[in-house]
Amino acid sequence: MQGYKVIFQPGDLEVEVQPGGTIMEALDKAGINADFPCGGRGKCGKCRVKILTGAGEPTAVEQDILEAQELAEGIRLACSTTISNDLTVQLPSYIQHNILITSGEKTFQVEPHLKKIAVEIEKPSLDAYSSDWSRLKGSLVGHGYDGADLKAQVALLRRLPEAVRRAGHRLTAIMHDNEITGIEEQDTTGIMLGMAFDIGTTTIVGYLLDLYTGRELGVVSMLNPQTRFGADVISRITFANQEEDGLAKLHAAVLEAINKLIGEAAGKAGVNKNDIYGITIAANTTMHHLFLGVSPRYIAVSPYVSVVSEPLVASAVDLQLEINRAGKIFVLPNIAGFVGADTTAVLLGTELDRSQDVKLVIDIGTNGEIVLVSRERMVACSAAAGPAFEGAQISSGMRGAAGAIDHVYFRDRLDYTVIGGGKPLGICGSALLDTVAGLLELGIINKRGKLLPFEQITNTNAQAYQDRLLQHEGEPAFLLADAGKTAHGRPVMVTQNDIRELQLAKGAMAAGVRVLMETCGVTRGDVKEVLLAGAFGNYLTPHSACVIGLIPLELESKIKMVGNAAGTGSKLALLSAGEYRRAAEIAESAEFVELGSYPGFNSIFAECTYFQQLR
Amino acid sequence: MQGYKVIFQPGDLEVEVQPGGTIMEALDKAGINADFPCGGRGKCGKCRVKILTGAGEPTAVEQDILEAQELAEGIRLACSTTISNDLTVQLPSYIQHNILITSGEKTFQVEPHLKKIAVEIEKPSLDAYSSDWSRLKGSLVGHGYDGADLKAQVALLRRLPEAVRRAGHRLTAIMHDNEITGIEEQDTTGIMLGMAFDIGTTTIVGYLLDLYTGRELGVVSMLNPQTRFGADVISRITFANQEEDGLAKLHAAVLEAINKLIGEAAGKAGVNKNDIYGITIAANTTMHHLFLGVSPRYIAVSPYVSVVSEPLVASAVDLQLEINRAGKIFVLPNIAGFVGADTTAVLLGTELDRSQDVKLVIDIGTNGEIVLVSRERMVACSAAAGPAFEGAQISSGMRGAAGAIDHVYFRDRLDYTVIGGGKPLGICGSALLDTVAGLLELGIINKRGKLLPFEQITNTNAQAYQDRLLQHEGEPAFLLADAGKTAHGRPVMVTQNDIRELQLAKGAMAAGVRVLMETCGVTRGDVKEVLLAGAFGNYLTPHSACVIGLIPLELESKIKMVGNAAGTGSKLALLSAGEYRRAAEIAESAEFVELGSYPGFNSIFAECTYFQQLR
Repeated sequence: MQGYKVIFQPGDLEVEVQPGGTIMEALDKAGINADFPCGGRGKCGKCRVKILTGAGEPTAVEQDILEAQELAEGIRLACSTTISNDLTVQLPSYIQHNILITSGEKTFQVEPHLKKIAVEIEKPSLDAYSSDWSRLKGSLVGHGYDGADLKAQVALLRRLPEAVRRAGHRLTAIMHDNEITGIEEQDTTGIMLGMAFDIGTTTIVGYLLDLYTGRELGVVSMLNPQTRFGADVISRITFANQEEDGLAKLHAAVLEAINKLIGEAAGKAGVNKNDIYGITIAANTTMHHLFLGVSPRYIAVSPYVSVVSEPLVASAVDLQLEINRAGKIFVLPNIAGFVGADTTAVLLGTELDRSQDVKLVIDIGTNGEIVLVSRERMVACSAAAGPAFEGAQISSGMRGAAGAIDHVYFRDRLDYTVIGGGKPLGICGSALLDTVAGLLELGIINKRGKLLPFEQITNTNAQAYQDRLLQHEGEPAFLLADAGKTAHGRPVMVTQNDIRELQLAKGAMAAGVRVLMETCGVTRGDVKEVLLAGAFGNYLTPHSACVIGLIPLELESKIKMVGNAAGTGSKLALLSAGEYRRAAEIAESAEFVELGSYPGFNSIFAECTYFQQLR
Repeated sequence: MQGYKVIFQPGDLEVEVQPGGTIMEALDKAGINADFPCGGRGKCGKCRVKILTGAGEPTAVEQDILEAQELAEGIRLACSTTISNDLTVQLPSYIQHNILITSGEKTFQVEPHLKKIAVEIEKPSLDAYSSDWSRLKGSLVGHGYDGADLKAQVALLRRLPEAVRRAGHRLTAIMHDNEITGIEEQDTTGIMLGMAFDIGTTTIVGYLLDLYTGRELGVVSMLNPQTRFGADVISRITFANQEEDGLAKLHAAVLEAINKLIGEAAGKAGVNKNDIYGITIAANTTMHHLFLGVSPRYIAVSPYVSVVSEPLVASAVDLQLEINRAGKIFVLPNIAGFVGADTTAVLLGTELDRSQDVKLVIDIGTNGEIVLVSRERMVACSAAAGPAFEGAQISSGMRGAAGAIDHVYFRDRLDYTVIGGGKPLGICGSALLDTVAGLLELGIINKRGKLLPFEQITNTNAQAYQDRLLQHEGEPAFLLADAGKTAHGRPVMVTQNDIRELQLAKGAMAAGVRVLMETCGVTRGDVKEVLLAGAFGNYLTPHSACVIGLIPLELESKIKMVGNAAGTGSKLALLSAGEYRRAAEIAESAEFVELGSYPGFNSIFAECTYFQQLR
C-alpha cells in the first residue's frame, strides 16, 4: 500500500507512514524523541503539534481536549491524528532538539549546546510593573528554566527594551545553560546553524551544519595562513616567542582565516552567517593556543606543558568570530602538550573510548599522534617524526599538491601517478613510502636502509630497474623520472639521504607504537584494528606503510582508513553537548607517555629505524 | 596591670591583652572569627598564625606540632602562644575575611564579595604535566574550592603562563564565587579596597573602604556632570531619547565622573586604585539605567517600568571602571521605576526591613520616595513633588549653595542664615519651608495658602512683619531681604506663587504618606519613627516640615535624621555579600503603590495641599 509523506519542520525531515498511522508513529520513525506523558492515550494533551499543510477534521479526542481556536490554527495531538494524506507538521520547540542523527556508523542524539525558545512576554501594566528583564525571565519559566537563575550580559539588557516593544512582546531567547546569550525579535526558532572546525598546522577545515537535523550544508577549507610564519608547530612557537607581536600575528591570522571560512561556507550554502550560533574547535595543542591567543611557549620546552587543556567555552564576541553575537565557541580539550584536541576529536569521532578491543589510532604527521586503547586504558604519545612525511627535507620532495608524484608502482616497469596529471615536479610523502617499500621488496635497499650497488642485488626482479640506479652528487640515488619527463627539466629521484630521512620518521612512529604496546602490556597479535586518521593516513598505501615498518607488517589486514576523524569528532561535539562532555572525559582519562623520557627509548628508536621486519 | 598591644595584619586592628593571655583571646577581643577545630587544645594545628614582630620562644605544644622551618619563620599556634610582650600578627588569608564591623548602631560580619587567596602552584614536571590552568585550579582545592567548577576568562589565561613563572609559582588568585577574576604575582593578600557609590541626580558620592576591616579611608563627591544635560530625571530621560547619542553621552558622563572620583579618592588616601576590587552602586532607577548605559525611556511613561531592576554584577573591565581589572561592580536592585536602588540602600542602611514597629522613611526631593514599614510589609511610593524643594521655579529660589538663605527665624525680628555667610542671593528649599511655616504660625498665611492683607491678620505677633508684606508684580509677597541687603541688589522674597508651588510639593509628599497609611491600615498614632533620609531631609527644620504638613504634625517628636542612608546602604552592600543579598530580598519584598492610579488620589492630593492641620 502507498504510504503518505510526513515532513517535520524545522529541518525538513521526511518520513513515509502507512495510511491510518498516527503522527506519533511518524515521529518515532523519524527518530524524534518526543514525550507522551499519558502514553499516547489522548489524555494529557501534551503532544500538541501544529499541522501546517494537510490538516483534516479533528478527532473526537482532539475536539474534547483542544480549544476551538487551537483546532482552527491546525493544532492537533500527535497521538490521536491518523494520517490520511501528506502532511507538513511543525514541531513544538521543546522537541525540536531531540532528533537522532546517524554519522558514519554511529547514531546519536542531537543535543544542541544552545537552545532557541520562542516566548511571549507579559505586557507591562500598572499591576505588572516589573522590569523588562524580569518579565523576560518569567516568560522562560514555562520552558523549564528557573527564572531566578537566569543571567545575561549588560549588552543584552541595553538592546532589550526596544527589541521587546518593536516585536510586540514576542521574542526568541537564545539560551546557553542559564545564560540568555541573545534575544531576537519574533519567532526565529526555525533555523539554527553551527560550524565545526579542525584547525591543522597546514590546513583549516570547516563544516557547516544544521544544528537541528545534523545535516551537513557544506565543507570549506584553506591553507592555514600561519604557514607564512613557519611550516610546523615548533617554528610557529619560535615565531610567537621571538618575533615582535609574534603571538598576536599568529592569533590574528587564524581568526581571520576562520572568519573567511565562515563567510565562504555561508555564501556557498546560501545562508546567513548570523544564523550560526555555535562553533567547535579541534586543533593540536599549539594551534589551540594560537587560536585562543594564548602563548604556546612552554609546550616546546620540557616538561612540555600547555597553558590550558580543559574544555573551554567562550563567546563569539570575545573571540571576534563573525557569527551571531549570541553564539558560543566550544573549544575541545587537549590531552597533553603534544597530543592535542585534534586527537581528542579523533577518539571521539572513532568512539575508541568505548572500544572493548585493543585498537591503535595513528595520525601520521610531523608530530604523529598515536593512541593505544586497551582494556579501558587509553595511552597516547606524540612521535617527533620530522618533516619527511610532508615531503620536506627530501631532495625531490614537495607537499601533496598539483605536480607531486603521489603513488609509485613497481610492476613490469615503474609507474607513477601525478596529482593533477601532467609531468611531475617532485614527490610527496606517500610516493616516498611507495618507492622505499618497492625498493625494499626488490632487495635494492637492505635492512639497514642502504641503496645497494647493482652487483650486490640478488633479486632478479630488480634487473628491470638497473638503469635507474645512479650516483647523484656523490651519493647513490634511484631515478623516478629523468629530466626529460619532468615539468621543470630536472630529474626526480629518491636519494640515499632521503631514505635516511624516511628511516628517522618511520622509526619515530614505530617506536611510539612499540612503547605504547609495552606500556599497556599488549602484543601485535592483540591489536584488532589500526585506524589511520588525518590527511596523510588516508593518502598512503597501507601495504607500503607496513613494508617499511611504519606499521607492524602483521597488522596490514587490520588497517582501516577513518578519514578526517578529527573533523568528525568536531562535528559530533558541535551537534551534541553530550558528545562535547564526552570529549572532556576522553581528554581527562587518556594517559600520556613522554617518549623522550621513556626508559630505553633511544635504543628502541634506533632499532625501529631499521627495516628488519622484512623477510 | 598594664596589657600588651596585639596588632593584626592586614588591617592594623589593635587590641590590648593582659599578660599571659593567648593570641586566641586577642582574636576574640578583636572580633575576628577564626576557627579552632580542636577547641583550642593545641591538637589540630589549624590555628597557625605568623608573628611578624615580638615572637618569643615556642611552647612545647608548638615545638611538637610545627616544623622547625615554620618555627624559624615565626609561625605559632594562636591557641598556644601566651603573650608576654607587644606583638604584630599576620592573619592567614582564610580568616582575614571574618571581621566584625560596627557601622552606626549595627554590627555585622564583613563578608567580601571577592576573596584573595595566596597559592603555591605545583611546578610542572614530566610526571605532573597538566596545564598551567589545571595546576592553578588544583592549588585552590585546599582553599575550599571545587577545582572542576572554577572558571576564568580567556584574557586571564593569556596572562597566566608568564605570570606564574615570573612569580616562581606563587600567585594570588582573586576569586568571585567560582570565577578566578584575576591573578597577581606573589602574595598580595595584604590589601583589598573597595568603593561604595551613591549616584544621585544632582550629586555623586563615593566612599573608599578597606574591605578587610571596613575602615573608611575617604569620602569624595562631585556634582553629577549629567546635570548639564538636564536638572532632573525627566529631563535626562528626554535627553536620552530625543538627542542624538543622548543615552551614550549621559552614560559616558557618569562613568567619567566615577572614574574621576576613584582617582581622587585613591590619591587623597595615598593608595593605588589598582588595589580597589569592588564597587557598589546605589542610585535612583534612572541614574541606575544611565550608569549601565540602558535606556530609561520607559520609566517615564505609564506603566513606568524599568529595563532591569534585579541585582546585577558586572566586571570592572566591561563597565570601563578604572579599578583592578579583576574587580566587580555590584549594582543594587531597584524597587520600581520611580523607587530606585537608592531607596533599597536606604532601607538596607536603616535596617527598616527588620523593624517590628511601624516606621516611615522619607527621602524628600523632586521625586520623593516614601516607604512605610508595617508588620512585615514594606510599601513604597514615589511622590512627584516637583522642583520647589530644590528651590527651582521659586521666584527667589536657588539650590542650597553659597549665597542661599537656608534657614529663616521669626524671633523678635526676622533673622536668617546664609550658606557661606555674606549677603544673600536667594533662598533654598529649607528656607522656603521655614518662611511659610513661620507665616502660617503668625496667621499671615491662611489654611488655603493665601497671603492675607495686613488688615485681615489677627495675630498681634504678626505686627512686627507688617512692612515686609508687599505687592510684587501684581501679587502679594513677603520680603526676606530688601535690595540693599542682597548680593545682587534685588530683593529676596517669597511670593504668593511660591507658596502655591510649595503647597503642590508638600501636598504630593503628604498624599503619598496618607496613601501608604491607608494601604497598610495604620494611623499616625501607630508610627513609631519617621526617618528623614537624603540631603534635603537632613537640612530642613523638622518643625517647619511639620507645621506646613509635609510630615503630620503629631509625628514631629518621632523624626530622626539618618543622613545619607543610601550611602550607608551602599557601604554595607560593599563590605558584606550577605548585606548585598539582603538588598535583593528588600527590593523583591517591597510593594509599590503607583499613586496616580490609587483610587481617589486626586482628591487626597488636593486636600493635602491645604494647611488644614494648623489650629
